[in-house]
Amino acid sequence: MDTAEFDLIVIGAGPVGENVADRAVQGGLSVVIVESELVGGECSYWACMPSKVLLRAGAALRGARDAPGAGVAGAVDVAAVLRRRDEIVHDWNDAGQVEWLQGAGIELVRGHARITGEREVTVDGERVLRARHAVAVCTGSAALLPDIPGLVDAAPWTSREATAVREIPESLVILGGGVVACELATAYASFGCAVTVLARSRLLGGMEPFAGDRVATALRTAGVDVRTGVDAQRVTRSGSRVTVELGDGTRVAASEILVATGRTPRTGDVGLDAVGLEPGAWIDVDDTMRVRGSEWLYAVGDVTHRALLTHQGKYQARAAGDVIAARAQGVAVDDAPWGRHVATADHAAVPQVTFTDPEVASVGLTEAAARKAGIAVRVLDYNLSWVAGASTHSARYDGTARAIVDEDRGVLVGATFVGPDVAELLHSATIAIVGEVPLRRLWHAVPPYPTLSEVWLRWLEEYDR
Amino acid sequence: MDTAEFDLIVIGAGPVGENVADRAVQGGLSVVIVESELVGGECSYWACMPSKVLLRAGAALRGARDAPGAGVAGAVDVAAVLRRRDEIVHDWNDAGQVEWLQGAGIELVRGHARITGEREVTVDGERVLRARHAVAVCTGSAALLPDIPGLVDAAPWTSREATAVREIPESLVILGGGVVACELATAYASFGCAVTVLARSRLLGGMEPFAGDRVATALRTAGVDVRTGVDAQRVTRSGSRVTVELGDGTRVAASEILVATGRTPRTGDVGLDAVGLEPGAWIDVDDTMRVRGSEWLYAVGDVTHRALLTHQGKYQARAAGDVIAARAQGVAVDDAPWGRHVATADHAAVPQVTFTDPEVASVGLTEAAARKAGIAVRVLDYNLSWVAGASTHSARYDGTARAIVDEDRGVLVGATFVGPDVAELLHSATIAIVGEVPLRRLWHAVPPYPTLSEVWLRWLEEYDR
Repeated sequence: MDTAEFDLIVIGAGPVGENVADRAVQGGLSVVIVESELVGGECSYWACMPSKVLLRAGAALRGARDAPGAGVAGAVDVAAVLRRRDEIVHDWNDAGQVEWLQGAGIELVRGHARITGEREVTVDGERVLRARHAVAVCTGSAALLPDIPGLVDAAPWTSREATAVREIPESLVILGGGVVACELATAYASFGCAVTVLARSRLLGGMEPFAGDRVATALRTAGVDVRTGVDAQRVTRSGSRVTVELGDGTRVAASEILVATGRTPRTGDVGLDAVGLEPGAWIDVDDTMRVRGSEWLYAVGDVTHRALLTHQGKYQARAAGDVIAARAQGVAVDDAPWGRHVATADHAAVPQVTFTDPEVASVGLTEAAARKAGIAVRVLDYNLSWVAGASTHSARYDGTARAIVDEDRGVLVGATFVGPDVAELLHSATIAIVGEVPLRRLWHAVPPYPTLSEVWLRWLEEYDR
Repeated sequence: MDTAEFDLIVIGAGPVGENVADRAVQGGLSVVIVESELVGGECSYWACMPSKVLLRAGAALRGARDAPGAGVAGAVDVAAVLRRRDEIVHDWNDAGQVEWLQGAGIELVRGHARITGEREVTVDGERVLRARHAVAVCTGSAALLPDIPGLVDAAPWTSREATAVREIPESLVILGGGVVACELATAYASFGCAVTVLARSRLLGGMEPFAGDRVATALRTAGVDVRTGVDAQRVTRSGSRVTVELGDGTRVAASEILVATGRTPRTGDVGLDAVGLEPGAWIDVDDTMRVRGSEWLYAVGDVTHRALLTHQGKYQARAAGDVIAARAQGVAVDDAPWGRHVATADHAAVPQVTFTDPEVASVGLTEAAARKAGIAVRVLDYNLSWVAGASTHSARYDGTARAIVDEDRGVLVGATFVGPDVAELLHSATIAIVGEVPLRRLWHAVPPYPTLSEVWLRWLEEYDR
């Protein structure tokens, strides 16, 4: 490296950091990115990508099993799944990602970065990098280990170990009932592992209640022991056996324990104290992803706690990279709502697909959130199994779709689809919400027959009734 | 029946006629519907529904085969598929549909209807029905038998016989290369039938050229003998063998021959001559589906040749039923573009899914059509196998997505997706086109990761490059 000064320093080379850097380079800036682990980040190696591969075989088999005449009664070939997982994570080798950085004109520095002053970052305590314009913290989040006696000593798995697994344990107890817990319970059950889910409250909290209820029912049908409303009081490991003691005194034992109780920001050791922020806390930013009160410090992705999803972090990253370049070059900033330089959708339309069985796809507000926001809510519920596309899909299709309408504005503000193969349906709702397309106009968006998308027509009929 | 006079007479009780009638009843009119075959129409018994069931098992098996670790190498259980087909078509019994008509308050008359004067329809030549306000012709279309010597005497199948099949023939030769030909070739090939497709030009003409090319390649991989640019000159049947002689002198023999060369309006014997229209011709209507020059005659669905698709016919039917009621009651008519009483989308956004392998989903204008319309076209092509959602879906995912942008307006005007499981992706494009959502705003519609919908992001990146 021939210089220690760049226009922009990005800390963390996950998808978010990569996108901030890429957009800034495209905007004419010189950019260095600092990474202490693998370039490509959590999502590529230990989260979205491998987990989807672990889930896909089971989903495809269910699809064939439920389609009359496909005549399948096979089981998941776990070894083949793990081989495909290894391919997808490139054997945890980031050479391809490093090559991409080079092609994109982004300088890579490996090591642990800490902010050590205004527009200054020090790597591994020795190498000082200076930013002419901005520093962006994109260090993401890590699994949160709750403060349960004995847990840390029980060698718990997090999503990392669960997605990087080499040998499926005979049994697995999962702490938590969120997306990670539900997805990994689904995958491991499909591998023949005896799974127990211990959740404090209903599954998939924060989503429409029927989503978690449906997933719980399906998990139970798949043989998973789902317990909600329970509290883990103590964890003990004895050799190849880990035991969880619950609040009511009952015990659950398994070969391994997976902790999926939430995320914590990876901001404990990036030098936040040097700029008056609290180490280990989420970082508060405005809609251009700039830290409030700072001229030069940005935070993007999970660390902001705006939406802990890869795609949403990348969305923020595009806005941030563009606005950093614009400000550096004195170009006009477009920060009105839905402008180029702001992540407005974080407040209105965060899509999420949970690849359970059934799949859960949601975007925008739930009924509860919409009511809390004071919106004149109209709820449209429809049984997905009633659309023609469901009956041709499978004789036992079961699903539900809910739309949340803002009656005053005559537009959609939220949607939740629960059922097999609903993932690709979601983007239609996201576009309707973000585009603020009036329901009157949506009557002219004809769903193709026979598909699951026909639920849109049913929603509109329900709305006009 | 206590009266022979109704506000509205609907001729034809397929999905289109049913929807015209239903909306008119909801609008306060008295309605009679006349049907000479099964209530529910072509789509329910001999087209969309049974054909999708014939295709589903093969698609589900391919999905499992291509998902690493699903470990399936099974074959379609034809008997099980046909049993499910029988269920879906209710054994060609329309009792359920008749019940629906009754529940909707629609009077049913069985028989053959002919227009015999102004606002007058005669059933089976003896029973006269009078309409206080309107008559709607919703008789649909039938398979067109091209004028090829020997064809009619060769006992050819149309889509009706092919979807109602009881015993799969050893071999099948298909005349035509459109949607019906491609779908049924896919289904029959999955049943182990030796299929030959004889098409005058490329497959799926009228769609983006790469769609038909991909389907042709896949059909060939599945063992189908696909011949394009050929002309059938003569057909002869000899016992259980039918032989097609081509223009170049070669012959193709098979157990059965399926004609899928297009559709013809079922208007030959509905009394169009009584109102100065040409029997057997398509019927020209305005956007409210009223026959041009008439105050009281409407035509809806396939008979208009606007878009020969069930969902689009039902869309027209909603407009027509509503506007007939509005006009009958002197209520204001909303016939501005995208208004409640017009089928504007017929001109801008007709969606269609072809359930072949790969699936083809298209809406709006193709590149060629957009250029012909004088639009400042920008074409965005993206290899669907490059999105993360494709790589988790299957190790051999192959697909293409094309967006057609109107540069002057900054909106999407067309989209085509080709690949496995793209059907539900289509509605996102339909909403973007119909909603005229600016591309600038679409940047804020974040596709969930990892799904195929991420192609939207790639299109936008390509557009801004």
